[in-house]
Amino acid sequence: MGFWKTWFSTSESVTTSKTTSFEEQTAASVGDSPNSVSEASSKEARIVFSTERDLDLYELEELCDAVGWSRRPLRKVKKAIEHSFLVASMWQVRGNQRRLIGFARATSDHAFNATIWDVVVHPDFQSKGLGKALMKYVLKKLRSEEISNVTLFADPHVVDFYRSMGFMSDPEGIKGMFWYPH
Amino acid sequence: MGFWKTWFSTSESVTTSKTTSFEEQTAASVGDSPNSVSEASSKEARIVFSTERDLDLYELEELCDAVGWSRRPLRKVKKAIEHSFLVASMWQVRGNQRRLIGFARATSDHAFNATIWDVVVHPDFQSKGLGKALMKYVLKKLRSEEISNVTLFADPHVVDFYRSMGFMSDPEGIKGMFWYPH
Ligand SMILES: CC(C)(COP(=O)(O)OP(=O)(O)OC[C@H]1O[C@@H](n2cnc3c(N)ncnc32)[C@H](O)[C@@H]1OP(=O)(O)O)[C@@H](O)C(=O)NCCC(=O)NCCS
Ligand SMILES: CC(C)(COP(=O)(O)OP(=O)(O)OC[C@H]1O[C@@H](n2cnc3c(N)ncnc32)[C@H](O)[C@@H]1OP(=O)(O)O)[C@@H](O)C(=O)NCCC(=O)NCCS
Repeated sequence: MGFWKTWFSTSESVTTSKTTSFEEQTAASVGDSPNSVSEASSKEARIVFSTERDLDLYELEELCDAVGWSRRPLRKVKKAIEHSFLVASMWQVRGNQRRLIGFARATSDHAFNATIWDVVVHPDFQSKGLGKALMKYVLKKLRSEEISNVTLFADPHVVDFYRSMGFMSDPEGIKGMFWYPH
Repeated sequence: MGFWKTWFSTSESVTTSKTTSFEEQTAASVGDSPNSVSEASSKEARIVFSTERDLDLYELEELCDAVGWSRRPLRKVKKAIEHSFLVASMWQVRGNQRRLIGFARATSDHAFNATIWDVVVHPDFQSKGLGKALMKYVLKKLRSEEISNVTLFADPHVVDFYRSMGFMSDPEGIKGMFWYPH
């Protein structure tokens, strides 16, 4: 996992639409470490995190397609992004080009609970520690807002991924439950 | 469970502060059924449901105290109510007096997911079908907003309560997971 070395920096403020609680535009960069075996370092490929909500929904759809998620109406995706407490995106930046390679969002009451949804890393970038870096970024943001209880619903194949980050399943017998309209 | 008979009626619009998606003030009444063995029907005790957010926080604290929940700062409770997608309360109404006897709220992205928190019925009113009626009211409201996935985290002793309403635990192996700041 030493391929990507994480450090944090704050980028210029970016005008974000529909931003509620994260007015400031903080970005964390994960770049090539000096001694990494990456592409030519002259290319300066960097990984940048953002809470900007002004995403290209087609680019997001492409990312979700890449991991095989079923399509959702863009109108509803737009609404969900507007009404999420936190929208986190991860970008590969090379010169003035950027590519969306990761995404996660959280709903919240802004006080006690947050629930993380739609965590995804593009297959080309998986298993490099970037999913963990994205989740760390999300947790850092939620913690900075005094949220004391961060929850999520994990598909069976990613329970261990979240467990490795300190998430516990069914603590004290608490059960995640679902209801679908009928 | 035949003690309370449920029917729905729409009350006058009530000015609500900080209402986001539930502008209309809909109330559902659960009153004594004509053939119930209730208190003198001249007293006209009714159960009323509301999505009004303008709650007396001390009254809400009293309700939560009654079921032994640990106290939470009222400042944060206020914020959580403001930023919940749905706030449902249940009242016993007798003449022009009303008493808060039940509460539930939900966070949501207003599009796909809602998560129900803080479901409570006052001990004096438990085991009469009112918890179920309150949950039905909440689900009806969420369904009317096109939410397709309603979730919650159930304490072990209430898993069966939610199951009786059609909630499933760990469907297809999906696990509810928690992370606490450290
Ligand atoms: C799940 C996902 C976000 C993980 O991202 P990633 O960048 O591949 O993960 P990382 O490289 O940061 O892995 C972090 C740790 O979790 C482990 N891990 C990664 N994916 C895992 C998986 N599917 N199951 C178990 N462990 C996993 C890694 O081994 C690593 O452990 P380590 O740090 O001890 O070596 C990514 O695989 C993905 O987008 N999957 C498809 C979409 C999806 O299923 N999302 C979750 C929906 S609930
Ligand atoms: C859980 C709670 C909201 C239920 O409200 P209630 O008004 O007592 O429930 P109802 O009378 O509507 O019961 C509905 C059904 O669930 C069952 N039920 C009620 N409480 C139950 C419990 N604790 N465990 C299992 N089943 C339960 C009833 O038997 C009934 O089943 P039936 O319709 O098949 O007869 C209430 O007991 C309460 O506030 N408890 C304390 C707070 C709490 O624990 N909240 C949940 C946090 S996750």
